[in-house]
Formats: sequence, C-alpha cells, structure tokens
Amino acid sequence: MELRALHPGAAYFYYPRPLCVVGVRDEAKGTSNFVPVAWATPLSSRPPLYGVCLSPKTYSHGLLVKAGEFTLSFLDFQDAPVVAKLGQLSGRNVDKVATLGLELAEGETIATPYLSRAYAAAECKLVERRSFGDQTLFVGEVLRVVAREGVFSEEGVLDLGRVSPVLYLGANRYLTVDRESQQLLGPEHS
Amino acid sequence: MELRALHPGAAYFYYPRPLCVVGVRDEAKGTSNFVPVAWATPLSSRPPLYGVCLSPKTYSHGLLVKAGEFTLSFLDFQDAPVVAKLGQLSGRNVDKVATLGLELAEGETIATPYLSRAYAAAECKLVERRSFGDQTLFVGEVLRVVAREGVFSEEGVLDLGRVSPVLYLGANRYLTVDRESQQLLGPEHS
Repeated sequence: MELRALHPGAAYFYYPRPLCVVGVRDEAKGTSNFVPVAWATPLSSRPPLYGVCLSPKTYSHGLLVKAGEFTLSFLDFQDAPVVAKLGQLSGRNVDKVATLGLELAEGETIATPYLSRAYAAAECKLVERRSFGDQTLFVGEVLRVVAREGVFSEEGVLDLGRVSPVLYLGANRYLTVDRESQQLLGPEHS
Repeated sequence: MELRALHPGAAYFYYPRPLCVVGVRDEAKGTSNFVPVAWATPLSSRPPLYGVCLSPKTYSHGLLVKAGEFTLSFLDFQDAPVVAKLGQLSGRNVDKVATLGLELAEGETIATPYLSRAYAAAECKLVERRSFGDQTLFVGEVLRVVAREGVFSEEGVLDLGRVSPVLYLGANRYLTVDRESQQLLGPEHS
C-alpha cells in the first residue's frame, strides 16, 4: 500500500509506544536487516530525535555503526508473527528479507528501506551513539515520516479503527490495544 | 495495597511500555511532585538503567537535577483520570499530592516516594543526564522494583487479568490493552 509523507512532528507516530522494527543496510551482503526493538523512545521534538537501544552483541549493532542511518517500521497486529520471526532469526546467518519474503519500500532521504507493510515508518540519520550499561543508544534525527493514508487524524493521532499496533509484553508475548477503551482526558474534559 | 519487592531484572515491569509517572522530591516545598512521562525507556539490563525525558522548561526538570533521584509509578487504567490530572497541573503552582489527595509510599533505597496506587514502581538513582534536542534524558539506575502481589508471573510478565496498564495515544487520549489479543510467539510456537 502506498504511504504518504507527514511532517516529522505532525503525527504521534510513536504512540501508544508500539514495538518498532529497525531497518539497517547490510552493505557487505547487499541486503538490509530488520530487527524488532522494544527499548526505544522519542527523545526530542525539535529537532525530532528518536533513540533505539541495541546490544553490542547483536548483528544489527555493527551494521548500524557502519551504515550511519536506519529506518523505523511500525506494523499492524496481524503482522505480529512477522515481527516475532524478525526477532528470532539473526541477520548473521540468514537474509531475513529473502527468508520471510518481505517487500521493501525505498527511503527517500536515506538509502535504507523500510517494510512495505508498515502502517507508518520513519527515516533516520544517526547523529549520536552512546553506551548505557550493556546497551548502546543510537540517536537518529527523523528526516521523514510516512504513513498509510488516513491512519493518523488531523491532530496526528493514530486511528485505532484502521490500525491495531503491535505491543510487546516480554517473554515472546505480543498483544494490541483495546480500541474501545480510548478516553479523551483533556483539561476541558476531566 | 502492600507492594512486594522484585529483583530489578526479574520482571518486565516496563512492558507493554505503559505511561510512567515520575516522582521527584520538592525539598523547598516539603512535598514531592509527580508527572506522567510518555518518552521513557529501559536503557540497560546490567546494570538496570531507565531513561526518562523531560523538557528543561518543566518544573520537574529543575527538581530532578537537584534531587538526584526519582521514582517510577505504573498505574492501572482505572486511574487514567489521575494520570491526566498529574499532567495538567504544574507543581510550580500547586501541590499535586495535596490537591489530588494522593497516598504515597516511602522509597526504601531512596528518599523519594512513589504512588501507593501503583501496581508496580521503581526507585532510581540518577546516574547521568544528557541533552538531546529540546529534552533532557535523565538516566536512573533502578535500585529497587516493587509490585502488587501476583501481578507479574514467574517469568516476570504482567498478568493482564489483574492489571490494565495505562497507555498514551497523544493529544490527551488514554487507553489500555486488549488482554484477549495476547499471543505467545516464541521460537517453538511460530
């Protein structure tokens, strides 16, 4: 499905804090590697920065240091089995894209693709990396955000009638949101 | 309700990435301030580190720089209105604890309390702070985690039959998870 560009700052593409799939080019193998990352967070609005944690032991860590850029792909809950498989396979041994038959979409501001099935994706240029304990925080400047037509409201809020984001509960457990539970609790409503 | 201590690496207390309420002592006013933070993430397992983003414009930012420690409280969805109010009031003008009639529980490893109604809470010592764009990332070492009896399984996974965590969707919209959607997608199940 065709994705359209959004101003990075105009949509809360990272809520309700779904699992993101980080894409990194693997130049040596002429492919890209995709790995689900649960430890990730927006870090700044202006400039828009997004941080993702990877262990130095992971294959993606080395790739990201070399590539200097990455993408974020956010998937619908129907793709949770794909997300799980991306976490179980290692790009060291297999080409996940070929093995899982994933379709990719080309980035526009960077050379790294994202997953075509994403309901939203972001193109990030690595601007800093920083060790914290046993992980590295990779900080990317969000250069471009794309999303399926109509999945974000005018306010930039995800329309849960159209998308059920993948959440992670730990220990290989995946789930999604209860869209009926949504409450508007603004100053004028509470 | 009485909370029991858990080993800081033994439970996935931060999944499915619910909104956390950050508590910071306000020495000058003889109280503590509590603010919901959506931009937060675990950063490391060993040592257990947790990062929370605050804008330097916020009242809590100045308090946290001074106090050098903070707590994280995770609340059930029935308390979403309290979470929303904590985000709407400013500790500059009001004592949120007194105004909202919040009960506090004393920290054991630090002098900062957490919210008694939390289903899980963590005590953190500030070990680093770092500017990223328009925010500061405060990095805390998680010294102690407490949780309501039985809300985490032996594996450390949140029992959604007992707790419905508060998620944030942006623009004052709150929601919770669909517990029926939970899928185990381990290597042996997929």
